[in-house]
Amino acid sequence: MSEHDTTVTQEHSGGKLRAGITELLPAAGNGLLGRRSFVKAGLGAAGGIALMQAVPASAARPGHMRSPGPGMSEYGSPAPAEANVKRIGIGSQRGTTGSGASRSPLEHLHGIVTPSGLHFERHHAGVPEIDPASHNILIHGLVKRPLLFTMDALARYPIVSRLQFLECSGNSGTLLAADPPQLSCGELHGLVSGSEWGGVPLAVLLDEAGVLPAARWLIAEGADASVMSRSVPLAKGMDDAIVALYQNGERLRPENGYPARLFLPGWEGNMSVKWLRRINVTAQPAMTKDETSKYSDLQPDGSSLLFTFPMAVKSVITSPSPGLAMQGPGLYQIAGIAWSGNGRIRRVDVSADGGKSWVQAALDDLVLPKSLTRFTSAWRWDGSPGVLLSRAVDETGAVQPTRKSLMSNRAAGAFYHYNAIQAWRVGEAGKVNNVYV
Amino acid sequence: MSEHDTTVTQEHSGGKLRAGITELLPAAGNGLLGRRSFVKAGLGAAGGIALMQAVPASAARPGHMRSPGPGMSEYGSPAPAEANVKRIGIGSQRGTTGSGASRSPLEHLHGIVTPSGLHFERHHAGVPEIDPASHNILIHGLVKRPLLFTMDALARYPIVSRLQFLECSGNSGTLLAADPPQLSCGELHGLVSGSEWGGVPLAVLLDEAGVLPAARWLIAEGADASVMSRSVPLAKGMDDAIVALYQNGERLRPENGYPARLFLPGWEGNMSVKWLRRINVTAQPAMTKDETSKYSDLQPDGSSLLFTFPMAVKSVITSPSPGLAMQGPGLYQIAGIAWSGNGRIRRVDVSADGGKSWVQAALDDLVLPKSLTRFTSAWRWDGSPGVLLSRAVDETGAVQPTRKSLMSNRAAGAFYHYNAIQAWRVGEAGKVNNVYV
Repeated sequence: MSEHDTTVTQEHSGGKLRAGITELLPAAGNGLLGRRSFVKAGLGAAGGIALMQAVPASAARPGHMRSPGPGMSEYGSPAPAEANVKRIGIGSQRGTTGSGASRSPLEHLHGIVTPSGLHFERHHAGVPEIDPASHNILIHGLVKRPLLFTMDALARYPIVSRLQFLECSGNSGTLLAADPPQLSCGELHGLVSGSEWGGVPLAVLLDEAGVLPAARWLIAEGADASVMSRSVPLAKGMDDAIVALYQNGERLRPENGYPARLFLPGWEGNMSVKWLRRINVTAQPAMTKDETSKYSDLQPDGSSLLFTFPMAVKSVITSPSPGLAMQGPGLYQIAGIAWSGNGRIRRVDVSADGGKSWVQAALDDLVLPKSLTRFTSAWRWDGSPGVLLSRAVDETGAVQPTRKSLMSNRAAGAFYHYNAIQAWRVGEAGKVNNVYV
Repeated sequence: MSEHDTTVTQEHSGGKLRAGITELLPAAGNGLLGRRSFVKAGLGAAGGIALMQAVPASAARPGHMRSPGPGMSEYGSPAPAEANVKRIGIGSQRGTTGSGASRSPLEHLHGIVTPSGLHFERHHAGVPEIDPASHNILIHGLVKRPLLFTMDALARYPIVSRLQFLECSGNSGTLLAADPPQLSCGELHGLVSGSEWGGVPLAVLLDEAGVLPAARWLIAEGADASVMSRSVPLAKGMDDAIVALYQNGERLRPENGYPARLFLPGWEGNMSVKWLRRINVTAQPAMTKDETSKYSDLQPDGSSLLFTFPMAVKSVITSPSPGLAMQGPGLYQIAGIAWSGNGRIRRVDVSADGGKSWVQAALDDLVLPKSLTRFTSAWRWDGSPGVLLSRAVDETGAVQPTRKSLMSNRAAGAFYHYNAIQAWRVGEAGKVNNVYV
């Protein structure tokens, strides 16, 4: 994008001088700037934002500088001023005490790690309270010898850790509605989170049990009251699956499967069975209630895709987004997350004119496989209406589809695996709305 | 280390069969095994650990599988059974209400991310309670135009994020004592933690203020009641320094500088000034109380190293470690963390015989610059006493020193920047103690 940048030097002219920095010219329609705006010294072009104020001559020090604050704590918490940053939609489904979902408030977060306290939840019978001292994991079925692992035994195995996303396949499903729901980014897309997951490679445990030649599937079963169960191809179990014990450095949180969960990188969330108690090695999938009544994709011809394992390439702009109003014309950072169950994100393009023109966004340093990836792009907003889009491409070459394209391959009522491009309309007053384009 | 591995096949012989897996032979003294034990299918050699038990014929389901558990929560917490995993040593220094330190319980953690709630603390006047709406950061001094940034203005700048460690230069200082203190790994070394830090590159803000040619230093000042202040070379500010707003995806925790802190990757912790309120651009360092009365290194000749910025290459075995007793002879995972303020970790060697022989440990997937790096090594402990060591080498070729070597370059009373090799003695009963070798 360097052809869009020219270096200029301006003279001092009061409060608006910018000297010796790179002036950025639009690289795409409606004020989108080139990638270099974020990756080199030309960054200084953000200059228009800084508030130059006269420094108060005798500013009194605030109270918190005049007397010491409270001391250390055993386990810290967010700042009271951030109390509005919490999981979204924590009500249980009607008639249940703990079934349902909560979402990560994506529009308030900035990282590829989601704090464990804000990781999305999806429970089918609430969060079981499990005593780790009496919890075991059984591997049985088509194996030479069934094995029962205590948590203490598991902790003596080699533990690997990786930064990867987890996404519920029902994420973003409300966007199948005929009219665009006027919800926040987190309300729409917050069934995805990122963590450092640490655990024992499942292949190690399967090797030890001795998988028999006829084996093709693993039936993973949770210790919640719904006995959530999914069929997993043996090949995934021998590839990058882990029995996770750690999340972001500490033991799993209860709502994420304490004391142990299956973790299948890149695959739909409920296959990463929480509160794992049993893996039955079989020749066939089990056709459990959790993969037939739910989590299957109806097609236009009336047939159903029973299994859709990897979560497809996807992205969303988290800022600006509904609820984060623009504060008048000027320079803004478009920021968002992209991810793919098939590997690394290769690129993300953004548009500020509803898809007429695109510019490649800058990806943050850490572009890891099957992980959240941050992207940013500079936007000089002139105050006129515009429609923001982001479109991710993964390392397999898969491109995030338009909503129109995605809907053309779906039956009415098909709900899972919605990964279409999200459009945000920025109105004249700076308000941001969800729109279909 | 492949010369140490041979593949064997054993016949079924009751509960101890291991078939078609790689049998590991020692690669170094006292039972240390080769690297391949953790990075290929030969992992199955951990077999002896798994408990093969008869599967109960009619095991009653536990209570948590018979009725639904509680539902979603706004902000999650660790499992009650993990309540013992907390910061260590949170008492304030005598005569103060909030000065002192707390440490991360390293022996209970497994990742390169430390949960924010367990990140170490070091406060010089407690934790100020700051209203972000009225907090500003001033850049002034040798600049073309002083600038005052509100938190809202800062959030409109480009934000980068990186996984990096932070270490107090006083970490491990108790090991200067003549006799080895009998403390846990976290008590000894827990003034280091890892986070995803997100913030605005300081170079962007300095560019905007317009640094004058005479400028060489930055005096960073915090908004706590101690007005903690440090002198930072301008070159670091223009390199990889950020004004951090985010920690592990969410806004900074209060004890880590909310709403904004300086973050200087790899440099001694207190230079990453928390609750940042002011950066004065100067020609000379300020010789503040926080870099003269403290945080300077006395030499044997009576002179003092005023500034020792990068934290040197270091590692520690977190498991086994004091308080985590071995449970009889068998196969164990030696696990630990390594880090260097000068870049990436190149390798970590471990010894189980007090340094007579060494084997290269396996590094976990994520080996990032100025970040915690995990290492593991397999150890078949025969039940006899042994001394475990880890020795890290960073990408500059710097090697973690022995305690003897480090002490020979120190004056009595010199306290900071202790990075010597840690030795843990494993006794016959499996108890682990801190020893000097």
